[in-house]
Amino acid sequence: MTDKAAILLLSGGLDSMVAGGLACTWGFSLYALTIDYNQRHRIELQAAARVAHRLGAREHIVLPLDLTCFGGSALTDAAIDVPKAGVGAGIPLTYVPARNTIFLSLALGWAEALGARDIFIGVNALDYSGYPDCRPAFISAFEAMAGKATAAGDGGAHFRIHTPLIDMTKAQIAAEAARLGLDAGLTWSCYDPAADGTPCGVCDSCRLRAKGFAEAGLVDPLIT
Amino acid sequence: MTDKAAILLLSGGLDSMVAGGLACTWGFSLYALTIDYNQRHRIELQAAARVAHRLGAREHIVLPLDLTCFGGSALTDAAIDVPKAGVGAGIPLTYVPARNTIFLSLALGWAEALGARDIFIGVNALDYSGYPDCRPAFISAFEAMAGKATAAGDGGAHFRIHTPLIDMTKAQIAAEAARLGLDAGLTWSCYDPAADGTPCGVCDSCRLRAKGFAEAGLVDPLIT
Repeated sequence: MTDKAAILLLSGGLDSMVAGGLACTWGFSLYALTIDYNQRHRIELQAAARVAHRLGAREHIVLPLDLTCFGGSALTDAAIDVPKAGVGAGIPLTYVPARNTIFLSLALGWAEALGARDIFIGVNALDYSGYPDCRPAFISAFEAMAGKATAAGDGGAHFRIHTPLIDMTKAQIAAEAARLGLDAGLTWSCYDPAADGTPCGVCDSCRLRAKGFAEAGLVDPLIT
Repeated sequence: MTDKAAILLLSGGLDSMVAGGLACTWGFSLYALTIDYNQRHRIELQAAARVAHRLGAREHIVLPLDLTCFGGSALTDAAIDVPKAGVGAGIPLTYVPARNTIFLSLALGWAEALGARDIFIGVNALDYSGYPDCRPAFISAFEAMAGKATAAGDGGAHFRIHTPLIDMTKAQIAAEAARLGLDAGLTWSCYDPAADGTPCGVCDSCRLRAKGFAEAGLVDPLIT
């Protein structure tokens, strides 16, 4: 295990691809972790596989974890519709209770087992859906907890949660993908794809993605 | 959802049964969560079902989450033998990387989805196996993080991680089970049971359990 191994939480969306691309440029070898949480937009799992391959991940684990048994989100409960009226104020129904905490905990477990100390997650706190677990205060608190949670931390190791996109707008993220030579057409963002596998265009995730490409003056290869 | 609903992390061992029993005496309705992490001692899942029934849990979720894909522990990697030479100093090979972080994160997700604010976990920091994620400093750090991680926390809610056994010896825990009228014979502790379903008697978990019953002057119904 090199010191430069890192876990990448890889959803298959644009943000996690760009986070992974930046990790590569900084010299990290990637171990990609995708959680199959029985999400409504399971099509993103195919995107995750494409992106892991493109990023040259050393290993890609797709871990089944059925969060529909808890429910509480439009992404994990078929009885709750995905909101499509536009990005509003407050925390939307697509928030999955404690999702990033669960995902980072799993990444922490794999990191410790591998001997890695670095975890990348593509959260961003601008042009986002208002999820509490995408903000710097959460990431800092998780990092502090990780040091107390592990045998490695007990031995003095420090786990770093890297959030290279946290202060970027969606336009900056779209531009960063282009700069890194990463094809956004590999990724998937829509929360509620049609049966034929096309994005709905009106969920928050579609709207934020479209706004980002438009503001960056770029064309989204997924749409064209 | 009553204010007194609580998630109980229920392994099927003596400690989580007693933690749940105390929660009941304090007026909580229990929602029991057991993680089937493909542990070597899968027999504990049967014990978890018995204990959930005994405690009158409103619901019992057994959630599959295959941690063997990460490995790094004698409990999740068949290539690593369970130590049997006696409880030593330091963190033993049965430590599962970030296990309690992962389990508490899942409990947090279910709690938030249910509207519950209380989580019980049967960790104890005396007469234990030396796991870092059984200590007060970890629990405090997790609780601080939980407030930042969730929509509920964003709205001012405080999640409480209850660790009623954290300062008890195993003898005190065995005595507490008896005081609460909970049959320790329902539970399971051994990490490496024989094919015929009997405890090995020499893993750390068997040794600590035996020491606890002996010091409490009680007979372990599982052994007799």
